[in-house]
Amino acid sequence: MTTTVPEAIERGRTLAVPALRAAIDRLHPRLRLVVAYHRGWVDADGSPLPGSGGKLLRPALAVLSAQAAGAEPAVGLPGAVAVELVHDFSLLHDDVMDGDTERRHRPTAWTVFGVADAILAGDALLSLATQVLLEVPGDAGRLAAYRIGDAVGDLVEGQSEDLNFETRSDVTLPDTLRMEAGKTGALLACSASIGAVLAGAGPRVVDGLAAFGARLGTAFQLVDDLLGIWGDPAVTGKPVLSDLRSRKKSIPVVAALDAGGPAAQELRAFLVAAGEPSEPDLVRAAELVEAAGGRDWTRTEADRAIADCATQLAELDLPRDAELELIALARYVTERDT
Amino acid sequence: MTTTVPEAIERGRTLAVPALRAAIDRLHPRLRLVVAYHRGWVDADGSPLPGSGGKLLRPALAVLSAQAAGAEPAVGLPGAVAVELVHDFSLLHDDVMDGDTERRHRPTAWTVFGVADAILAGDALLSLATQVLLEVPGDAGRLAAYRIGDAVGDLVEGQSEDLNFETRSDVTLPDTLRMEAGKTGALLACSASIGAVLAGAGPRVVDGLAAFGARLGTAFQLVDDLLGIWGDPAVTGKPVLSDLRSRKKSIPVVAALDAGGPAAQELRAFLVAAGEPSEPDLVRAAELVEAAGGRDWTRTEADRAIADCATQLAELDLPRDAELELIALARYVTERDT
Repeated sequence: MTTTVPEAIERGRTLAVPALRAAIDRLHPRLRLVVAYHRGWVDADGSPLPGSGGKLLRPALAVLSAQAAGAEPAVGLPGAVAVELVHDFSLLHDDVMDGDTERRHRPTAWTVFGVADAILAGDALLSLATQVLLEVPGDAGRLAAYRIGDAVGDLVEGQSEDLNFETRSDVTLPDTLRMEAGKTGALLACSASIGAVLAGAGPRVVDGLAAFGARLGTAFQLVDDLLGIWGDPAVTGKPVLSDLRSRKKSIPVVAALDAGGPAAQELRAFLVAAGEPSEPDLVRAAELVEAAGGRDWTRTEADRAIADCATQLAELDLPRDAELELIALARYVTERDT
Repeated sequence: MTTTVPEAIERGRTLAVPALRAAIDRLHPRLRLVVAYHRGWVDADGSPLPGSGGKLLRPALAVLSAQAAGAEPAVGLPGAVAVELVHDFSLLHDDVMDGDTERRHRPTAWTVFGVADAILAGDALLSLATQVLLEVPGDAGRLAAYRIGDAVGDLVEGQSEDLNFETRSDVTLPDTLRMEAGKTGALLACSASIGAVLAGAGPRVVDGLAAFGARLGTAFQLVDDLLGIWGDPAVTGKPVLSDLRSRKKSIPVVAALDAGGPAAQELRAFLVAAGEPSEPDLVRAAELVEAAGGRDWTRTEADRAIADCATQLAELDLPRDAELELIALARYVTERDT
């Protein structure tokens, strides 16, 4: 699928990358190297790499959310930096906890620098994110720092539940959606509203933008879970049928199980089986998820979440440009193929 | 050695424990259990244990520092809670990184709840600590939150250096003292000044109290390192000659190495030897540290740091009661035998 990169992504990146570099430069040299490596800015020995490291969705949202509140894009910049630092914190720690050895086609930071420095780099980023916001004078910086703290609380809780679900066989669809709302939705809700907080917007606009971000998070995760099964490995960078390989109870799988019937029964047997699944097993499992309706359910829910995003925004009477750009961004990230 | 517990410790504990419980109650149930277990409030299954969990030195300092700025003890309370939460965050993460399986005679949290929930509980505490401070209205809460962020940055850097030193043979005494200033000193400096920040004190008093706390941190660490070799296992809860057993380059050891001479030479050979040291090896190593002057140097430096603490305070023209109580607290924690 070819999708044009929205201008908001470019604008966010142009503003955020220098500010992110300046923030990360404040870290102790050893931890700075871990973070710069993790972001794809440098190699393990510190040699610079081309590229600016990722699409920076969260900074783009933060900048747009300042514009949605009628402010200049730069007003959202400390928020853009902070949400990206928190995102990096969570990825660094998650890779340790999940034991993941690869991210974006490269060895994960903990495999290169050790578990301790990956944990410490994450800790340092979490603290730095708050400081960047507290450097904004007045009450806006303080409110923004408080809100990012709420997002971190939800994110950490979501990750804890996710890990716990792996060992349980009774996880329901509402359980999974609630877990994902914490793990993915909370930081996107914060990203989509933190610029407005920094712009001094009132609670109606701030909470409305946060609700938009939360629904975007749901859509994002649903699409991510579809790609985890049916995504093109050449594009996603993960093995074919990746989430089934690890017998992950992702949303399409849980939706299929919840639907019941013979396909769900057979799928359940696949999930509890021991040992590495064979390639034909994996193909069969994907067919079962689809036959039980898990793929359709997830696609329909993703579409509904995207539609909700537009509805949420329409109620807020935002500047028309900002509203259209937020919608374009939401569509872009949920039509993504990586 | 018998030392009377200073009243400031009791006062800090009486104020801080209910507030700490209320803060920790805000965590997700699973992570709340990890923290309550770590603090010694509950057993692994959540059954309450007697006692209030530790002597709460940092909260006592925070409360006293509000009094030193002429405010009521309760003004320092959000600071007391925040520094203790940060202390717990660092212990939870350090135990994972160091692979320590026991703390205060009990299995460490990660051995009971897994690495992931120990990391996540630490993450949640770090974020919560900032939020507790940001709930203080006005600029004082913001300044306090910013300062605790600085302390976390230093603490994380110190821990990273400490782990790095383990693999190096060229660590000098200044390196070690600088590392300890981050790892131990920064949070004590923050604890000893955060109450004054919350009381709205000016930079002279705040920075003076922080300098007192930093020197106290040095004294504290020097005494800790002495106990790590010559402490009574029945009291410290660690094996006899504990730090030599792990061939840790603690301050007395590095001071002995720096002194040079035949004892230092033999000590160096002990430190680089492979395998578990024998009991006679350990006894001999302790003799070597002492013969090379490492024990005396450390004791003298600890005494000097304590004397500096008193000098620092004398320059600040604090209320006399608060000054005397801070000095009593400093003496208490550096005469401790646990």
